[in-house]
Amino acid sequence: MKIISSPRLLQKEIIRLKKKGKVIGFVPTMGYFHEGHLSLIRRAREDCDIVVVSIFVNPLQFGPKEDLKGYPRNIKKDISLCRNYADILFCPNVKAMYPDDFLTEVKVGRLGDILCGVSRPGHFKGVSTVVNKLFNIVLPDKAYFGQKDAQQAAIIKKMACDLNMPVEIQVLPIVREYDGLAMSSRNVYLSYTERKEAVVLYKSLILAKDLIKDGVVDCAKVIARMRSYILKTKSAKIDYIRIIEPKTLVAIKKIKREALVLLAVFIGKTRLIDNILIKR
Amino acid sequence: MKIISSPRLLQKEIIRLKKKGKVIGFVPTMGYFHEGHLSLIRRAREDCDIVVVSIFVNPLQFGPKEDLKGYPRNIKKDISLCRNYADILFCPNVKAMYPDDFLTEVKVGRLGDILCGVSRPGHFKGVSTVVNKLFNIVLPDKAYFGQKDAQQAAIIKKMACDLNMPVEIQVLPIVREYDGLAMSSRNVYLSYTERKEAVVLYKSLILAKDLIKDGVVDCAKVIARMRSYILKTKSAKIDYIRIIEPKTLVAIKKIKREALVLLAVFIGKTRLIDNILIKR
Repeated sequence: MKIISSPRLLQKEIIRLKKKGKVIGFVPTMGYFHEGHLSLIRRAREDCDIVVVSIFVNPLQFGPKEDLKGYPRNIKKDISLCRNYADILFCPNVKAMYPDDFLTEVKVGRLGDILCGVSRPGHFKGVSTVVNKLFNIVLPDKAYFGQKDAQQAAIIKKMACDLNMPVEIQVLPIVREYDGLAMSSRNVYLSYTERKEAVVLYKSLILAKDLIKDGVVDCAKVIARMRSYILKTKSAKIDYIRIIEPKTLVAIKKIKREALVLLAVFIGKTRLIDNILIKR
Repeated sequence: MKIISSPRLLQKEIIRLKKKGKVIGFVPTMGYFHEGHLSLIRRAREDCDIVVVSIFVNPLQFGPKEDLKGYPRNIKKDISLCRNYADILFCPNVKAMYPDDFLTEVKVGRLGDILCGVSRPGHFKGVSTVVNKLFNIVLPDKAYFGQKDAQQAAIIKKMACDLNMPVEIQVLPIVREYDGLAMSSRNVYLSYTERKEAVVLYKSLILAKDLIKDGVVDCAKVIARMRSYILKTKSAKIDYIRIIEPKTLVAIKKIKREALVLLAVFIGKTRLIDNILIKR
């Protein structure tokens, strides 16, 4: 596995590989790998000739009061976890990605202003801008994202489609801990008690699934039941619970065929997200 | 020359050509070719293996009160003018470029809000968004723009650089009519008298050049002299006159090495722009 930090050098190398006909797979990450990341990297390995993994904690997607400084990092461990799967690890520094005179923004309209965008203003503009840059550097044929960040995945898909980027976006299932908690680098922030209580997100999604299976199709009812279930947990503070159309992210009132139930909940000071796709 | 209207088909064709090692040159236009366009197309022909010309009157870059509907078009003549130079003519329709659910915008920060951006709000966001799309469809190694639209050229350069697009932007000199008027598709709007008076833009730039050559380095003085010169022409109404640093577009007070003198003037109802690069 080559480790490259220069955007320009990586792009040059990729152009060379593409001229040879190689299919490029790309997994963009913020590092601190867990099984969720590794599932994406392994899938890229199966699908593609060349696997590029990036680690870049993108300052543009953190609000001024968010956890940019404290975001968990362990580059040595990340290297050892991905070195058997990836051909290239791309680790640019902040100045290389955002020189002082950097100006350009990529924004996917209203998709970034709803759901997590309400409590994290500017977050998704930061995400779409950095992913646009990374796609232009890595020039992937396929790029891999986790379903855990459902809104992010929808926004990246829409951006790639709207801007005619020649990349296929693959969204892979959420990987969960033994008790159902969605894997996340931020789970490391949880205290022992919080960690146990954090499973309430997943359990509330299973409650929703069961209710819908039993014929409850009124979204307001499903959400109300989830809400009262979650609020039994002392450390939980609900940011939002929504049931939406998976592609457009528009809220729906009655569940017909496909729906995405998603939520953001603070467990203590840690904001966690999770979701489940429901097909009737 | 192939004529292609589908973004997807063109992109597929280009990917095929790039795998063969072909160097792709691209000239994006809104059609109604004059010698300015043709100078770009001929230069692309000299530099590249494959020359792609696009004709797309981009609704996103026209304000609600602007001349989208009346913008001059003559696709048959354009085809005959470029068929000996271009390999592919790309003529997408509006729905193919902007489906009903189109959402994404590319904005080059403050560069689009100054100069022409003041009287044309949203114009440069429309330009950078469409050029971003076109670059992703055509995947050019080199793309050609005219210096006449100096702000546009600076914005496209900045976008390509900020977003790490693997394209080299070439900006070619303004092509002028016999009397100095900068060639523009919009010159067709001018009446016989206006056409004669329109040369005032160029003449005021030559005045500026001469003043600076004679040692006048105070930009306010140069601009004041240009202003009073232009206002002698009855049909002329000045939108702006500025002297700026060519790359950052920041206004300068005293001319040192390099400066771009640029202006926008209404001749009757037609808004014309022109500029001159000064090196001391």
